[in-house]
Amino acid sequence: MKQTSEPAPAERRGQRRVSDDKWRTALTSIEPNKILLRGYPLDEVMGRLTFGETIYLLLMGECPTPGIGRLMEAMLVSFIDHGATPPSTLAARNTATTGAPLRSCVAAGILGFGRYHGGDIESCMQFLDAGVDLVRGGASYSSAAEEIVERWKETGDALPGFGHRYHTRDPRAARLFQMALDLEVEGTHIQMIRAVEMLQHTRHRPDDPPLPINIDGAIAAVCSDLGMPPTVANALFIISRVPGIAAQAQEERDRQQPMRQIDPKDHIYDGPSERRLPARRK
Amino acid sequence: MKQTSEPAPAERRGQRRVSDDKWRTALTSIEPNKILLRGYPLDEVMGRLTFGETIYLLLMGECPTPGIGRLMEAMLVSFIDHGATPPSTLAARNTATTGAPLRSCVAAGILGFGRYHGGDIESCMQFLDAGVDLVRGGASYSSAAEEIVERWKETGDALPGFGHRYHTRDPRAARLFQMALDLEVEGTHIQMIRAVEMLQHTRHRPDDPPLPINIDGAIAAVCSDLGMPPTVANALFIISRVPGIAAQAQEERDRQQPMRQIDPKDHIYDGPSERRLPARRK
Amino acid sequence: MKQTSEPAPAERRGQRRVSDDKWRTALTSIEPNKILLRGYPLDEVMGRLTFGETIYLLLMGECPTPGIGRLMEAMLVSFIDHGATPPSTLAARNTATTGAPLRSCVAAGILGFGRYHGGDIESCMQFLDAGVDLVRGGASYSSAAEEIVERWKETGDALPGFGHRYHTRDPRAARLFQMALDLEVEGTHIQMIRAVEMLQHTRHRPDDPPLPINIDGAIAAVCSDLGMPPTVANALFIISRVPGIAAQAQEERDRQQPMRQIDPKDHIYDGPSERRLPARRK
Amino acid sequence: MKQTSEPAPAERRGQRRVSDDKWRTALTSIEPNKILLRGYPLDEVMGRLTFGETIYLLLMGECPTPGIGRLMEAMLVSFIDHGATPPSTLAARNTATTGAPLRSCVAAGILGFGRYHGGDIESCMQFLDAGVDLVRGGASYSSAAEEIVERWKETGDALPGFGHRYHTRDPRAARLFQMALDLEVEGTHIQMIRAVEMLQHTRHRPDDPPLPINIDGAIAAVCSDLGMPPTVANALFIISRVPGIAAQAQEERDRQQPMRQIDPKDHIYDGPSERRLPARRK
Repeated sequence: MKQTSEPAPAERRGQRRVSDDKWRTALTSIEPNKILLRGYPLDEVMGRLTFGETIYLLLMGECPTPGIGRLMEAMLVSFIDHGATPPSTLAARNTATTGAPLRSCVAAGILGFGRYHGGDIESCMQFLDAGVDLVRGGASYSSAAEEIVERWKETGDALPGFGHRYHTRDPRAARLFQMALDLEVEGTHIQMIRAVEMLQHTRHRPDDPPLPINIDGAIAAVCSDLGMPPTVANALFIISRVPGIAAQAQEERDRQQPMRQIDPKDHIYDGPSERRLPARRK
Repeated sequence: MKQTSEPAPAERRGQRRVSDDKWRTALTSIEPNKILLRGYPLDEVMGRLTFGETIYLLLMGECPTPGIGRLMEAMLVSFIDHGATPPSTLAARNTATTGAPLRSCVAAGILGFGRYHGGDIESCMQFLDAGVDLVRGGASYSSAAEEIVERWKETGDALPGFGHRYHTRDPRAARLFQMALDLEVEGTHIQMIRAVEMLQHTRHRPDDPPLPINIDGAIAAVCSDLGMPPTVANALFIISRVPGIAAQAQEERDRQQPMRQIDPKDHIYDGPSERRLPARRK
Repeated sequence: MKQTSEPAPAERRGQRRVSDDKWRTALTSIEPNKILLRGYPLDEVMGRLTFGETIYLLLMGECPTPGIGRLMEAMLVSFIDHGATPPSTLAARNTATTGAPLRSCVAAGILGFGRYHGGDIESCMQFLDAGVDLVRGGASYSSAAEEIVERWKETGDALPGFGHRYHTRDPRAARLFQMALDLEVEGTHIQMIRAVEMLQHTRHRPDDPPLPINIDGAIAAVCSDLGMPPTVANALFIISRVPGIAAQAQEERDRQQPMRQIDPKDHIYDGPSERRLPARRK
Repeated sequence: MKQTSEPAPAERRGQRRVSDDKWRTALTSIEPNKILLRGYPLDEVMGRLTFGETIYLLLMGECPTPGIGRLMEAMLVSFIDHGATPPSTLAARNTATTGAPLRSCVAAGILGFGRYHGGDIESCMQFLDAGVDLVRGGASYSSAAEEIVERWKETGDALPGFGHRYHTRDPRAARLFQMALDLEVEGTHIQMIRAVEMLQHTRHRPDDPPLPINIDGAIAAVCSDLGMPPTVANALFIISRVPGIAAQAQEERDRQQPMRQIDPKDHIYDGPSERRLPARRK
């Protein structure tokens, strides 16, 4: 019989409760005084893996190499916040202004990772996969780029991973590609997205808006080259923005009157001026 | 007039839209092709600060020292997941089984950080603060511990930061205190919670269940010694568990039938056996 | 340029704030001491329209006829609760057991209206529409039913609006069709779903499970005959189950220990035995 | 041992699975082809009780009298929507603009029923209870009103149930009290809140803003007189606003561009002009 909206109590469905019926999980094992994360004692992981590396371990099942670990940190950092105006952040701030607890504000913010906000990563991974398949079949990157851009145009949708309403060159995407190159994890998907970028550039007419690779596209290419499935890339996007949403909601609670009307265009930044990281960090 | 549930359009309230009316944010500045996080260019932060350190920067406004950075990572790792049975995780899995998107599952999970789940951190910070105040007034740690435990008993609530249904010695708490000692950030709140632990130990009767410091208590003491307000500790707790909730929800989607009835007691762990981290990580 | 995940502040996009830029809403007008719902003074609606009729007014823009009003009430009542075991209800109960406030529990429950839980209504409306199109083109209901069932089989999915894990005859569906007949609003979509049901019945083999019209199917057919778009049917489903989720979450808070492990199969009903409505209600 | 954030698998806690361990629910009984809501067959309730009456049945356990049923409908209608500017509605619209599904938008909206938005109902019920206790002890309504207003002033909070940012006389509150009087369910709490209103009126100075009873106060008084606990009044508030939030989110999806920046002050109403209900409705 089919899945419907109303499940039956199990005893009616004739399930027997034998040991084979147990459901399985491979993430975390809990015994008294012992917590194993993917097999590693959690207290041993503390202090030895960073949070970013542990997120990789949890989602992918194995410890990352140091290079992949560094790229994970950079991807997580790249999405951490984008100011007060993304709709997900505004949903969180509008929830905060009602006096709701922080967890409610964060949940409201996460619900705003809809089709138009973060949804590009998965589409872009599929878009690039199609190109890489052509390359594996013997096509050059440039002809594969032409082919997949043509195919995509037929959908009528905007090219996934390209364009930004605000930035004409996304500093986060550039930095991520440079790191992937330095850490020697650049692979076929990064080459593919660069080929598409080149194609867009050669076809670009003076009056058109620029169409740079955006951070969604960069993350999509890097995640694909690291062998992550789209579900993991999707999880990374959610995880990476939570600190930003929490910080924005908490700032709303700390600095603003409750029950105010929030006009996103009506804000100014009053934090520190541009500064450099301490030398030891470089 | 007062705050009510129905706000008025601003034009009715006689607000003029002058520049002084702009609302302020000190977190992230967005200009074309430039993103500043607390003043630091985000692309410069990428690859130089870890995700954990950047979370600290975002929430506290300044880069952490290397020692505090390492402690941040350890705190974030300590809470990352606790298996399939916490109610927040079950809320996320029950949402996942309906075919809901990952972000909905994560939001449902976060909503389960209620009074009894994560709520101890803030109570414990206030509890320890009261003891530290007594010490600053001249009391010894042991007499301050006696005093605050007596006072707390009058509330009828369980001692915040102590006891675990499952663990008689929480391996995460022990590891966190050891790291705080090694990194020389142990302060008055950690000493205070240890004094309470000692008091509990001397008063412990053979038939009573053990009452170890739990991870909520350890986080509360460490956050207090790092000068974090309870709101930041609260945000850290939410941020730290999101990867676990996302991984559990995604596993539900990947490995289980939709619309199943989830009995939390009916699961087994089938992941890797206990193993050690690669040597280079130690 | 395209929609990306990071919107730009408007002043950068060169928007001028002229009156034509105002965004529009046609639902509720608020002036001092006057609230108009779709043009009707809300205090006049109170006591004159029921909640169910007012929901119709809000969603469809006009007052329902008395017959449609009664059908609205019946549809809203039909979905109001389905016991303690739907995953959405379990997500709400698992949230309630953590001590979260009621609104967080209700939100967690609503997030569990995923693809497999409530999602059938929209699919079924499209499925029936295809059949009604054939009938309008001259086909008989029975041959249209054969045609759309054949087409659907190619998708590999279960027939939308049919089958229930638990009920072999859904008492709510039967009642809804009887009311539609009595109130003379039965139309082509109800006839279409009945034709499909008849087809399934004649093809039914003794060993197969029965495949009755379920409540999703009945709602889909009735909403279509009332001229509601799928978006309104979807909203009705969410609205109708909220009281059930709120009642279940509140019962969890009132009757159970916090932080318990909820096994959905492990409950018994201890409410009133079957009883009849008072005579005046019939 | 105490409630902590990490529950133990039951088998570790030595629970036996005997019949006494079953957990209990008194709301809805599900058997094959039979659904009983508080003992009444759901298909019999359909068409005989309205949605509002069925909500009362579900939350209170018994069918309402016709008078109470009409008051339930009026209370549910009174809160159904308040235009585009409440923060909860804006959280839902900001979620809708990201392309999120309707259920995510509604969940985000519900999370915005925080302390300052809907939270007044429970405070006001306690405030009025204190006055009614004094009246039962022999005080007059006016002296009880003076007493509880004095006591409340010491808290420094605004008087719960009074004042509105926008309305100087809330048309919904006036209508609800008139209906309670007509339906002969006016009781001690309505008299108490009227006594407080009178007191405010006599003390009112020309320059102060008016302080009318708001809809939160009216609902609080009526719910108290109907014998509803604050938890039920709280549930009613959530249930009543869900249609408004769903309609606003759906309108956002239907009429606006995705990923827009929503300024709440920048909207105009373009729905029907003021009109009267059809005669038969009066």
